[in-house]
Amino acid sequence: MEKYDVAVIGTGPAGISAAITLKIRNKSVILIGPAKGSEKISRAAEILNYPGLPAVSGRALADALTGHLAAMDIPVTQKRVSAVYAMGDYFGIQADTDMIEARAVILATGVAGGNALPGEAELLGRGVSYCATCDASLYRGQSVAVIGYNEEAAGEAEFLSEVVSDVTYYPMSKYAPDERENLRVLREVPTAVSRGDDGAVKVVTAGGEREYRCVFILRNAVAADRLVPGLKTDGAHVAVDLNMKTNLAGLFACGDIAGRPYQYIKAAGQGNVAALSAVEYLDSKNKDKR
Amino acid sequence: MEKYDVAVIGTGPAGISAAITLKIRNKSVILIGPAKGSEKISRAAEILNYPGLPAVSGRALADALTGHLAAMDIPVTQKRVSAVYAMGDYFGIQADTDMIEARAVILATGVAGGNALPGEAELLGRGVSYCATCDASLYRGQSVAVIGYNEEAAGEAEFLSEVVSDVTYYPMSKYAPDERENLRVLREVPTAVSRGDDGAVKVVTAGGEREYRCVFILRNAVAADRLVPGLKTDGAHVAVDLNMKTNLAGLFACGDIAGRPYQYIKAAGQGNVAALSAVEYLDSKNKDKR
Repeated sequence: MEKYDVAVIGTGPAGISAAITLKIRNKSVILIGPAKGSEKISRAAEILNYPGLPAVSGRALADALTGHLAAMDIPVTQKRVSAVYAMGDYFGIQADTDMIEARAVILATGVAGGNALPGEAELLGRGVSYCATCDASLYRGQSVAVIGYNEEAAGEAEFLSEVVSDVTYYPMSKYAPDERENLRVLREVPTAVSRGDDGAVKVVTAGGEREYRCVFILRNAVAADRLVPGLKTDGAHVAVDLNMKTNLAGLFACGDIAGRPYQYIKAAGQGNVAALSAVEYLDSKNKDKR
Repeated sequence: MEKYDVAVIGTGPAGISAAITLKIRNKSVILIGPAKGSEKISRAAEILNYPGLPAVSGRALADALTGHLAAMDIPVTQKRVSAVYAMGDYFGIQADTDMIEARAVILATGVAGGNALPGEAELLGRGVSYCATCDASLYRGQSVAVIGYNEEAAGEAEFLSEVVSDVTYYPMSKYAPDERENLRVLREVPTAVSRGDDGAVKVVTAGGEREYRCVFILRNAVAADRLVPGLKTDGAHVAVDLNMKTNLAGLFACGDIAGRPYQYIKAAGQGNVAALSAVEYLDSKNKDKR
C-alpha cells in the first residue's frame, strides 16, 4: 500500500499549485491526473488574465504549469480516481485498480462536464461504472455501453472492446472511437439510465431503450459527492470555506470544483490555500499524537 | 471629479489581477498605488510557488506583473489613499488631495505593517495623519513627527521637512531619511500617542514623551477599518466571503488584507474573484436602473 501525507487529485492549475506548495513545505505528495495537465486549458485559444503571463496561449500556459512541476521534480501519477473514502485518520483513494493511502486529500478535479443522468446515482456500482480500467474485467464476454464525454473516453471504449464482447459508444462530445466489429458508435443522446431485467442496465434515448450488463459513464470529472461519500456539496460544487476546508476533516477542495468563477488564476490561488490548510491540518494531527 | 466603474486600491498581485480582469470585462478602472508594484515582492529573494513561473526572483515577478499591466495599457495612478467613503450608490475615495468617484471599490492594500499604537485610532484626524502629501500644508511652520515603517516614509519625511518647521523621524524599519538641519532621526521606539496641551500630540517612548502639532504614521498599508468607515473586520483582516464581498455593498477585498495565507498566487487568484464579483455587482445595479 502506498502512503502519502497528501494526495492531490487533479492536474489543472489548482492541483498543480497545491502540489508545488506542498513540496516546498516538505510533505510527501502524490499528484494524480493526466500528465499533460488540464485538457480545458490546452484547448483555450488565448488567456489574458493569468497575471505575469500576458496574452498566453492555452497550450503555453499548460506547458508553463507542467514545466513548473518538472522543474520541481514533482511526478504525475496518471490514474483515474473513482472513489475517496474517509477512514478517520486517513483516506483510502481508489485510483484505477490501486488503493492509495493519504493522511489528507486535496480535490481539484474540476467540474463534471454534464449533469448526472436520471438513475445514474442509484445504479452506480450496480451496473453503472465511472472507471473502464477498474471494471472492464468484470464484464468479460458481455455487452456494455459507454457514454463518453471526451477524447479519453473514446480511447477507453477501444480498450473496453478488447475485453468485453461488444461496446456501444454514445458520444457526448466531438470525439468518438473508430468503429470496429464489436465497437459501434450510436449517435443518440441518453436521457436516463434505468434498471433492466436480471441486473441489466438500460440506456434510454429518444430512439428507445437498450440493455447492457454495464454502462460506463466517462466524464471529465466525477461529481464530487459521488466521488467522496459524505462530502457536503452546494449545487454542483463542493462546499468550502475561505481556507478551502470541506465538511470532512483533512479533505480540501479548490479550483472549479469549489465553485465559480471558473478561472485559471483563481484555481491556482485556491490550490495554494488548500495546500497550506492541509499542512496546518497535518501539523495539528502530529501535535495530537505527542 | 473623476468617475470610474471600479477603483482598485493597491498594486500588489491582488490589485493587478483585479485590474486586468476588469479591463477584459470592459469596465473603466482606476488602479491606485505605487507604479513599481508591491515593494514586498520586489524584495523577495526567490518565489518558488507562483505556478507557471518556476523559481522566479522577486524582482522578476514584480516586473512580470507590472509588465502585464503595461501590455494591456492599464496605467497606475500613483497616489496614497487615505479614506474610502461609502456614499450609497457610489464611493468617494480620498487619494492624496483628490477625491475620486467609483461605483465599486476593490481593496487590495495588503496588511498594515505593525499594529495600531495605543491612542492612534482616537487621534486620527485630530493630530494623527496617515498622509503627508494631504496634510503637510496644514502644519506649515510647525513641528511634526513621522513614525515611518518603510523606505517611502523616509522620503515623505524629507518632503515634509520642506514644508513644516521641523521633523522628528522615528524609524520603524531599516530605512531612515538623511538628516538635515530641520530633520532629525530619533532611534527610539514609540509605544503610544496621546493628547498633549492645546491640541498637540505626544509621542511616548521609553525615553520619555515629546509633543508635536501632528504625528504622521506612515505604514505600508492603513488598517482597513480606519481606511473605510463602517467596514467589518476580522482581527487584522477585512471580513470577506468566498466571493470577496465585504459587509459593504459594492466594496470587495482581496489579497493579504482579506486574510492569510500571505501568498502571491492566492492574492492574484482573489483579485480575479473580486473583479468578477464587482462586474456582477455593477451589472445588477444597471438592471435595477432599467
